Amino acid sequence: MTIHTLAIVGVGLIGGSIALGARARRVAERIIGVEVDPLTRDFVRDRCSLDECLGDVAAAARQADAIVVCTPVDQIADQVARVAAVSSTTALVTDVGSTKGQIVRELAGRLKPACRYVGSHPLSGSEKQGAGFAHGELLRDKVVVLTPTEQTSPEAVEQARHLWLAMGARVTLMSPAAHDEALALTSHLPHLLAAALAGILPAELRGLTAGGFRDTTRVAGGEPELWTGILLHNREAVLEAVKKLESNISHFRAALETGDRPALDALLALGKRNRDALGN
Amino acid sequence: MTIHTLAIVGVGLIGGSIALGARARRVAERIIGVEVDPLTRDFVRDRCSLDECLGDVAAAARQADAIVVCTPVDQIADQVARVAAVSSTTALVTDVGSTKGQIVRELAGRLKPACRYVGSHPLSGSEKQGAGFAHGELLRDKVVVLTPTEQTSPEAVEQARHLWLAMGARVTLMSPAAHDEALALTSHLPHLLAAALAGILPAELRGLTAGGFRDTTRVAGGEPELWTGILLHNREAVLEAVKKLESNISHFRAALETGDRPALDALLALGKRNRDALGN
Repeated sequence: MTIHTLAIVGVGLIGGSIALGARARRVAERIIGVEVDPLTRDFVRDRCSLDECLGDVAAAARQADAIVVCTPVDQIADQVARVAAVSSTTALVTDVGSTKGQIVRELAGRLKPACRYVGSHPLSGSEKQGAGFAHGELLRDKVVVLTPTEQTSPEAVEQARHLWLAMGARVTLMSPAAHDEALALTSHLPHLLAAALAGILPAELRGLTAGGFRDTTRVAGGEPELWTGILLHNREAVLEAVKKLESNISHFRAALETGDRPALDALLALGKRNRDALGN
Repeated sequence: MTIHTLAIVGVGLIGGSIALGARARRVAERIIGVEVDPLTRDFVRDRCSLDECLGDVAAAARQADAIVVCTPVDQIADQVARVAAVSSTTALVTDVGSTKGQIVRELAGRLKPACRYVGSHPLSGSEKQGAGFAHGELLRDKVVVLTPTEQTSPEAVEQARHLWLAMGARVTLMSPAAHDEALALTSHLPHLLAAALAGILPAELRGLTAGGFRDTTRVAGGEPELWTGILLHNREAVLEAVKKLESNISHFRAALETGDRPALDALLALGKRNRDALGN
């Protein structure tokens, strides 16, 4: 597959990094962006080496043979529907949303059967936001989950796989529901938790935090609106994950209350074993 | 104050780093270590630039004019008592334990009134362990909390302050109880939480973790036995901190259950505000 024109809808941290990575790896001959805010359009064009940055998503979609929607999750379904309505039937349409089930539900009945849409989620987030932090290596060696459904055309999956592999990422396939259940635990819950912990820190104790508090709460620096959208999109699975965590915290509490050293040792050892298995 | 002989009892990550930092900054003319395990004694002597590494804590304490006990928290009181029994009455005796109240309670009535003991806690931990990871800059710009009591001699506080400042650290004074309450929230709770989150990760989801999960659980890689000791030493304050966190998590859960976007926004925004105030 050769991409002539790659369109990035929403040029923030992820969209901008895809543009820069695609440029560096010669994934597409032409890379265009879409930014609704006219004040940032020139900045993101220059910062992310775009050939052009437009304000009109349809105008960009009509020219492109691959379109990646990189907006906040609660705008993705609408943008995908808008793109799919005007793009070539051979063009790939994908997104980078952190949730997948709700997007599929919102798109039900809104896409032409021939449309080559498949959901993608590059596991490459950061607490940083905006094109200013974009860099071309953000996706390198990262996992991108593709979430085809029974309606997804095999061509869309193949095109998306090639796109992400060309960006230096690894690709794995899951159903939207399995993706959402997994990410609730591996991404959405850690975010909620980091925010919950940071939220109870009184200002007068800030000077007594060290690496442990800072690491554990780092992702709480992410944009609240983005994360409210993600958590609400995936609320059923996130609630399940929260309950699992609350249950495990209550085991720690019980072991502390009774001074049960072996139980506490075992709980901490399980955490260490699981964490050590992840590497750095 | 000039330290002729500095003794480090327990040459692990912290003890070894103090030795290396003291050497680089010429804090003492002679630096000796104490390691009970004869098999590691030569290794830590070479790795941490010690002039000598002994097996006998009393032999080291008799020669030293500053002794820093760097063992796991549940051995600190015994080691301090042993050191104080034989050291010069003008020698500083301190420790680096992550808890302070329990150590003071265990030492009650066991120290000569003239003894210059004061508790210290350098906020410089890491999930890494052992002298192999020691480095001379570990304490630089870190906060060291001194926890004098009514029995503590002002000379001990002055000597400890000078020692830590000479190591490049900043020094702050708190009561043992205030220290323990603060650190329960800023250090012991994050550790418990990281372990609780890592503990619920099924092996099949490891490949779907990214930076968020890894940061949030990083400290769970710490040694379980060390942390069991810390958590049990400080159980009252840790339990209070756990309850505060559980209560905040339940606010997140309620907002998710009712789909309350403004409430979720506000909870995440508070977390972000507090986290942003800490810097990197």
